[in-house]
Amino acid sequence: MAIPFSRIVENLPESTPFVGPETLERQSGKAFLARIGANESAFGLSPLAASAMREAVAESHYYADPESYELRQALAEKHRVNIDEICVDAGIDSLLGLTVRMLLEPNQNVVTSHGAYPTLNYHVAGFGANLVTVPYKNYHEDPDALIKAATDHNAKLVYLSNPDNPMGTWHGAAKITQMISNIPNNCVFALDEAYIEFAEEAIAPPIDTSNPQVIRYRTFSKAYGMAGQRIGYVIAHQDLITGFNKIRNHFGINRVAQQGALASLKDDAFLTTVRTAAIAARERVTQFANTHGLTALPSSTNFVAVDLGSTEVAKQTIAELNQRQIFMRMPGVEPLNRFIRIGLGTDQEHEEFTTAFNSLMNKRKRT
Amino acid sequence: MAIPFSRIVENLPESTPFVGPETLERQSGKAFLARIGANESAFGLSPLAASAMREAVAESHYYADPESYELRQALAEKHRVNIDEICVDAGIDSLLGLTVRMLLEPNQNVVTSHGAYPTLNYHVAGFGANLVTVPYKNYHEDPDALIKAATDHNAKLVYLSNPDNPMGTWHGAAKITQMISNIPNNCVFALDEAYIEFAEEAIAPPIDTSNPQVIRYRTFSKAYGMAGQRIGYVIAHQDLITGFNKIRNHFGINRVAQQGALASLKDDAFLTTVRTAAIAARERVTQFANTHGLTALPSSTNFVAVDLGSTEVAKQTIAELNQRQIFMRMPGVEPLNRFIRIGLGTDQEHEEFTTAFNSLMNKRKRT
Repeated sequence: MAIPFSRIVENLPESTPFVGPETLERQSGKAFLARIGANESAFGLSPLAASAMREAVAESHYYADPESYELRQALAEKHRVNIDEICVDAGIDSLLGLTVRMLLEPNQNVVTSHGAYPTLNYHVAGFGANLVTVPYKNYHEDPDALIKAATDHNAKLVYLSNPDNPMGTWHGAAKITQMISNIPNNCVFALDEAYIEFAEEAIAPPIDTSNPQVIRYRTFSKAYGMAGQRIGYVIAHQDLITGFNKIRNHFGINRVAQQGALASLKDDAFLTTVRTAAIAARERVTQFANTHGLTALPSSTNFVAVDLGSTEVAKQTIAELNQRQIFMRMPGVEPLNRFIRIGLGTDQEHEEFTTAFNSLMNKRKRT
Repeated sequence: MAIPFSRIVENLPESTPFVGPETLERQSGKAFLARIGANESAFGLSPLAASAMREAVAESHYYADPESYELRQALAEKHRVNIDEICVDAGIDSLLGLTVRMLLEPNQNVVTSHGAYPTLNYHVAGFGANLVTVPYKNYHEDPDALIKAATDHNAKLVYLSNPDNPMGTWHGAAKITQMISNIPNNCVFALDEAYIEFAEEAIAPPIDTSNPQVIRYRTFSKAYGMAGQRIGYVIAHQDLITGFNKIRNHFGINRVAQQGALASLKDDAFLTTVRTAAIAARERVTQFANTHGLTALPSSTNFVAVDLGSTEVAKQTIAELNQRQIFMRMPGVEPLNRFIRIGLGTDQEHEEFTTAFNSLMNKRKRT
């Protein structure tokens, strides 16, 4: 018997947004020396959070509070919004899936940038919606083009990540505020701010939960160093939060992650340390790229995109770095795929990466 | 502007499958003395798992392996199936949601028992499918009636939990095997075995992944004591697993939970202890009920359903126990809601529960 899949799932490809580093390690039989390809934070997590989580392990037999009440209370205070304007869930990936499901009928349109975060695209396909893309402009997402496409295509959802992944570039608060003011009717703007804490300047526009057309996505995965804990949240108009609450897995949060997130919020000193370290590490990577005559894009994230001149060279470099046990990724589509994305690593990882990179550049010079 | 929700989400009620104990504690301003209402395991988790998880906290900044390869390998060995016949995800709740999404078009039918696990119903509504229910028969789910309804209503999905929640009753392997042999064409059987490790006898039918009409649901939430870690899995025909892989959140698993689950599987001694303790605790609750002249249903789970004679008395008893800081729940619908569901607690919790229960029974005698 053929499985009686729904039409949407029957027609989906067997694709995954990303291949994990563990899969590559199993294929090569060798462990990576540097894990700088998945935008994980080399700066680890807050000692307060780590301690709270180790303690919370003993309560693993209890479900988490499905309302994440204490965490939402702390987040509401931090962002100066109402507790009912926050929804906590198992990371931004999950929240993007809920967003698509909540807004889109099959065949309705979602607008994003060509080459932007693939997991959004995965969910758009997964719910049978249609993806409309606009090109990056000078390696930045293009707010004006996104808004125009959303208007032209009667999109229900338009997505932008600020700072951007995979390029690391960003727009200032004024530009994003202008974008918000131009969202077409009947459309919601998903503003993914996963990397916002890594930005040197204040680039987040003011949070305005009176606007029912904007959802802000935040996470503990990046600057807070808790990617493996799967916890993130959205800030939005209460009516949008009601939508999330209608469909989310109410008992889907990890109890230990909840405690870790709460403790993280109390450790401003740690976050400051991470920001400072990230700025220094970006500078280190940029200078290293320059020593090879390569251009690095300015970045507000925990990675730096470096121009290798051609797609062919970029792809080959990633393959060779993987072979040298350096886990790295690169943008997937033209014209972004002339770049490689160098994640900020620990000192040890940076050393391993630069050694491997120097070695393969020397080899290229010789041949 | 009204939020441009999809039609399905627009029409959904603002309902949640369960209210968490933390919510009740916030409402009353008092902490529960016994937490025996959510079928959490009072027997905690394996010391090996706890230790592995405390250690894994330091790696929280890494995403989990999206393939859960090592865990699936261990599970494949345990269940003697192929690794591609297992999908690990963030608990059975999430897997049930994926199942509904993967199989059902809006308005197609799902068959379950009236009063069975509400989270399935939540997902059925959440994806716009239609729920058909059949009554319990002598406080057991009724396999014959479920199959008949699935056939009559051309259902794409039929659900049964063995052992059952909320009644704790069960069917032997032969009856479930018979049910499997009668699944109508174009229908998949979701066999939820969340509580299977608590059963005294071997009631799970043999696992046959050559049958593309059966999905077996297992979890680390119950006997393994890891509810707060959100990790479970399905065992099924490879084509069904492909369906899950097309739509699941590939990076949705908690890295620490993954390590804990893996360590749990290596601790058979712990599981044996839990089973023994559960059997003794069921006996203790049953005897306690009998001292009050009340009938307890035989149970294969970590809770015991006790007949209070009427819905009114059952509801009042739960309310009064809650007031006395005992967290307990009861079945939600006729005729099951004549029962209260007494979770197996620690010695301390059992003491708190029996004290509170004795006290309210004495009060009733006096008035």
